[in-house]
Amino acid sequence: MTGRLICTGLGPGDPDLISVRADRLIRGARHVAYFRKAGRQGQARRIVEGMLAPGVEELAMEYPVTTEIPFDSPAYNALLSAFYDRWTQALRTRVEAGQEIIVLCEGDPFFYGSFMHLHVRLKDVIPVEVLPGIPGMVGCWNVLGAPVTWGDDVLSVLMGTLPEAELIRHMRSADALAIMKTGRNLPRVRRALAAAGRLQDAWLVERGTMPGERMLPLSEMEDADCPYFAIVLVHGRGRRPVAEDAA
Amino acid sequence: MTGRLICTGLGPGDPDLISVRADRLIRGARHVAYFRKAGRQGQARRIVEGMLAPGVEELAMEYPVTTEIPFDSPAYNALLSAFYDRWTQALRTRVEAGQEIIVLCEGDPFFYGSFMHLHVRLKDVIPVEVLPGIPGMVGCWNVLGAPVTWGDDVLSVLMGTLPEAELIRHMRSADALAIMKTGRNLPRVRRALAAAGRLQDAWLVERGTMPGERMLPLSEMEDADCPYFAIVLVHGRGRRPVAEDAA
Repeated sequence: MTGRLICTGLGPGDPDLISVRADRLIRGARHVAYFRKAGRQGQARRIVEGMLAPGVEELAMEYPVTTEIPFDSPAYNALLSAFYDRWTQALRTRVEAGQEIIVLCEGDPFFYGSFMHLHVRLKDVIPVEVLPGIPGMVGCWNVLGAPVTWGDDVLSVLMGTLPEAELIRHMRSADALAIMKTGRNLPRVRRALAAAGRLQDAWLVERGTMPGERMLPLSEMEDADCPYFAIVLVHGRGRRPVAEDAA
Repeated sequence: MTGRLICTGLGPGDPDLISVRADRLIRGARHVAYFRKAGRQGQARRIVEGMLAPGVEELAMEYPVTTEIPFDSPAYNALLSAFYDRWTQALRTRVEAGQEIIVLCEGDPFFYGSFMHLHVRLKDVIPVEVLPGIPGMVGCWNVLGAPVTWGDDVLSVLMGTLPEAELIRHMRSADALAIMKTGRNLPRVRRALAAAGRLQDAWLVERGTMPGERMLPLSEMEDADCPYFAIVLVHGRGRRPVAEDAA
């Protein structure tokens, strides 16, 4: 029995930013699995386009359609949980039969990644390995071409889904900010940044390191324009900077 | 004139975690540059051991020796600033003569990286490109084998050099924590975690993804044992978790 599950972090989107080890595993894979919305190609699958060997078996783990169920309802949780349970069983059966399955995940799998729902169910049952990747936010701040933190800067990573008062509190106390899950929460994120006095420093980066990449000052954006794959970034202020004082 | 400066993020330490693009650039380089302490091999240079082509020219940018000057003194800043100015001039001259120089930097260059001191001086003068890498903290939480954040968790990245009261305040308000620049600040970091009620959840990861890698609960560590290449991590608590509620 040599089966195992290897989750590879794919990084921010540019396939050239995948790690050497993940690249080798993906190109040599006989079975790959990835999450996607029903009817879509999926972001992870798109990143590895052209890298998969001929004849590879693809397991598309399609999220259940939930358009009519609120995201925070018990029914939504039950539906998602059954979905993860089903794939847990399917992957376990395959790995126990000796298959090596490469799971493809955008960014870094342990940083807000969906893979954790399979990881928690499988890690003590079958061999599971996780390879780190460059998180999406790192790709986005690279696109902006300036250091996001230096000196003693505090960086806080926030979800746009947090309550507005909590967003404001964190925005006031950190030096640098990365705000994810923006999309339809973007108007609230913008109000919170304005209240915290940081709106003028905020950038929106959409599809960072990918085709169609776009960046603009958040203050210049229309409220109606709420891209999904977007991260809001505020650069640090370099607390106790070392060389710039004297530069 | 085809010269340019390319700073490659090397990731957390394991050379297999370097990006495909950085790996290609490093193996094909004719000139490489890296920071190091005088008399040491240096962490960046160690990561690429065995990857450099025969005959490559190595530029070791050795930090000035500062053992007798306090880190926060104007004299220290002046010394460091002169050091960066000197290398700015040296690299500029080479690039203007047509050289392509690959600068090797651990982790991600824009995330608390020393390269920023050259970047700020050179970016408008010669062609400068920066490739992102997996930050050291991402390699460290991968070593611990569990998701660091999920749901609506807030992650705060803190420097161990911050005042204790400020550390406590941030440790209380974030869900997940990554604390860098530990070393001789470790006793203060530990006191702050205890005051914030998070010490029992804290891990110390030393040389994550590198030979000699070590991890242990911070509460079990001796105060005298203050490793330099170490990061303290506290996992998030999964605010509004999606599937685990029902699992």
